[in-house]
Amino acid sequence: MMRTRPLKVALLGCGVVGSEVARIMTTHADDLTARIGAPVELAGIAVRRPDRVREGVPAELVTTDATALVKRGDIDIVVEVIGGIEPARTLITTAFEHGASVVSANKALLAEDGAALHAVAQRHGADLYYEAAVAGAIPLVRPLRESLVGDKVNRVLGIVNGTTNFILDRMETGGTGYSEALDEATALGYAEADPTADVEGFDAAAKAAILAGIAFHTRVRLDDVHREGITEVTAADIASARRMGRTVKLLAICERAEDGRSVTARVHPAMIPLSHPLASVREAYNAVFVEAEAAGQLMFYGPGAGGAPTASAVLGDLVAVCRNKLNGATGPGESAYSRLSVSPMGEVVTRYHISLDVADKPGVLAQVAAEFNEHGVSIETVHQQVKDGEASLVVVTHRASDAALSATVGALRALDTVRGVAGIMRVEGE
Amino acid sequence: MMRTRPLKVALLGCGVVGSEVARIMTTHADDLTARIGAPVELAGIAVRRPDRVREGVPAELVTTDATALVKRGDIDIVVEVIGGIEPARTLITTAFEHGASVVSANKALLAEDGAALHAVAQRHGADLYYEAAVAGAIPLVRPLRESLVGDKVNRVLGIVNGTTNFILDRMETGGTGYSEALDEATALGYAEADPTADVEGFDAAAKAAILAGIAFHTRVRLDDVHREGITEVTAADIASARRMGRTVKLLAICERAEDGRSVTARVHPAMIPLSHPLASVREAYNAVFVEAEAAGQLMFYGPGAGGAPTASAVLGDLVAVCRNKLNGATGPGESAYSRLSVSPMGEVVTRYHISLDVADKPGVLAQVAAEFNEHGVSIETVHQQVKDGEASLVVVTHRASDAALSATVGALRALDTVRGVAGIMRVEGE
Repeated sequence: MMRTRPLKVALLGCGVVGSEVARIMTTHADDLTARIGAPVELAGIAVRRPDRVREGVPAELVTTDATALVKRGDIDIVVEVIGGIEPARTLITTAFEHGASVVSANKALLAEDGAALHAVAQRHGADLYYEAAVAGAIPLVRPLRESLVGDKVNRVLGIVNGTTNFILDRMETGGTGYSEALDEATALGYAEADPTADVEGFDAAAKAAILAGIAFHTRVRLDDVHREGITEVTAADIASARRMGRTVKLLAICERAEDGRSVTARVHPAMIPLSHPLASVREAYNAVFVEAEAAGQLMFYGPGAGGAPTASAVLGDLVAVCRNKLNGATGPGESAYSRLSVSPMGEVVTRYHISLDVADKPGVLAQVAAEFNEHGVSIETVHQQVKDGEASLVVVTHRASDAALSATVGALRALDTVRGVAGIMRVEGE
Repeated sequence: MMRTRPLKVALLGCGVVGSEVARIMTTHADDLTARIGAPVELAGIAVRRPDRVREGVPAELVTTDATALVKRGDIDIVVEVIGGIEPARTLITTAFEHGASVVSANKALLAEDGAALHAVAQRHGADLYYEAAVAGAIPLVRPLRESLVGDKVNRVLGIVNGTTNFILDRMETGGTGYSEALDEATALGYAEADPTADVEGFDAAAKAAILAGIAFHTRVRLDDVHREGITEVTAADIASARRMGRTVKLLAICERAEDGRSVTARVHPAMIPLSHPLASVREAYNAVFVEAEAAGQLMFYGPGAGGAPTASAVLGDLVAVCRNKLNGATGPGESAYSRLSVSPMGEVVTRYHISLDVADKPGVLAQVAAEFNEHGVSIETVHQQVKDGEASLVVVTHRASDAALSATVGALRALDTVRGVAGIMRVEGE
């Protein structure tokens, strides 16, 4: 039984993603109709610069008045692909108030204000879907919200930012420094003119907050996520990792504490073994491991950004929301009943790779080892090297808390025989 | 707002998977209640042998009368983890007729009779979910039915049977023959006493039929799937693959033809490059690539079988179906509107690796090459080897139809100078 009144969609934003959404809705209209059970129609497209509207986008639908579009009252679903906090937040809220459901690709907004938006959606009996906000085309939000909803997720660990993975991959394969690799990423369109959101880890941190919230059924705010970017990663770090059979990746890691009562979420560069599946994730690809009590270890891999992949995720959500509308139902809302606390970085327990420049004289290693021992940080391996009269130590620790490690490093810096701490990086995935 | 009348679940089967489902429903009852929005209660467990019921399974719920259980009338959801065609089919149909929705892990039944079961479900306004039927805990059915529903899937290619992957992995890493590796798999519990369903590819073919149907929105019957198992794979095949930088995997491959009007589905051993992500899928793990027009190439990886992983998938579906019940709605049903034809194996186009034992005399290569040319099969590489007076040729072809390749092999067998065709295997993933 096919309904004939079409579901009406308002598209907010018509850049790289929005124009792909419009293109697919037009070219694949028959398939979408069959899959939804009713026709779906693009009823309006709000843009900032109508002169920049791309080829293939129906010009008669374009408006610069996004507010009027979401207030029209006949819009069933608003697709928000503007990004950023405002005006996206106000437009989405207005859309809910006028009876629409919302599909969004906006990780920054969801991370900052997801709970409030979910509350408004629920109040109005509307859906808020956002698969495209995390890891582009890779199904991750739906598997966590639905497929693994009967399981207990203990860990989410992955590469969720394509730009930084591209840069680190180039540093690894080309042996180049950070700036050179960033320039290459910019020239090839993988990095934006202002790369801050990517290289400083803000984008990955927003995704980590969203993933941790869904995975652990709790609220994790953006401020709860410990964040370090890749701007301090050097060619020497990568070479040092390589000598130990490891590579460097920017990871987002969300973990449930062993006692089950708190969680942690963090984004930072880390060394992982070359044999780890994430080590072979090249260029701008994303990949995420999910560890759950019953399911075991799952991995999801694919293109983490780009117009078409992101549009694929948006359209999957659009079909789901349309089906819900036809059913007079809504899909899963926010699930934050666990109310777990988020522990600070100092309580995170992991392993560390520390490079020290030291005096080339007897007793230095003993002195250094004593400081680790003093702070309860157990050493797994030490590599000592003397080159051109300069001595260096590379220490890899067993698992220790971030606080204990920081205290150790502070004490090492105070030693006369330690000339400098050349690098500290966490070791994951072993 | 929490509903207090519990949703009642009948569990059919309490073996490796069923007992895990019962255990998780009991130990994680509070989480399930919070996630569903209503309590969910195990109302009965049908088993064949009540004396074999496992520890931790509530004995008072156990019955041997599965038919009476599904006919009770107060059951909201039936979880079927018996497997096989009958009595599962009749029990599921009876469950629908008595107002229940169904979660099933039964790949054989879904592949053989999925369309009819979906029709009964739809007639009764019930859900039929079956994430656990394909690739255990790996979310694959839901991503295809929901996440990628706005995209156009062109190809699904993967390792969907853990037993055969374990055997091939052992042959690869241990250099052992097929029988020895099968014995090891049996001893470790990876293969059943009668391994036919796995090693002859029946299990993988059922999954291929299900995946192809969902991916292409069409009907693919089990009989439509070309099926070859791994019983003919030899240590020599694997050594030959290794010399060319490849390994052997049992693959399920579902493809849309380039003209878009037909599809193919097949299960057979194939050589893939060692650099391909599927080459590093070890032991009993599963991994599936999905290629879609907008999303690009996605990969899903995880444990493909086992009690707990399969139970995780069952419980995800159980929560989804419970939510649908509370919403008074149903999830996606069968989507087969495309009505694409399924082409026979002869029309599949791929590459081939052919080992020939030939006479050690001049002109043989020219003769062999002429036969390939005659049948329109283009040669990519030839390796010629003479050892102990025996000459062999290993030919790898460019893309050709299976029909053209078969005709070529027939002609080669008829040549006086060809003593035998030692091995033919398809080459994929390049």
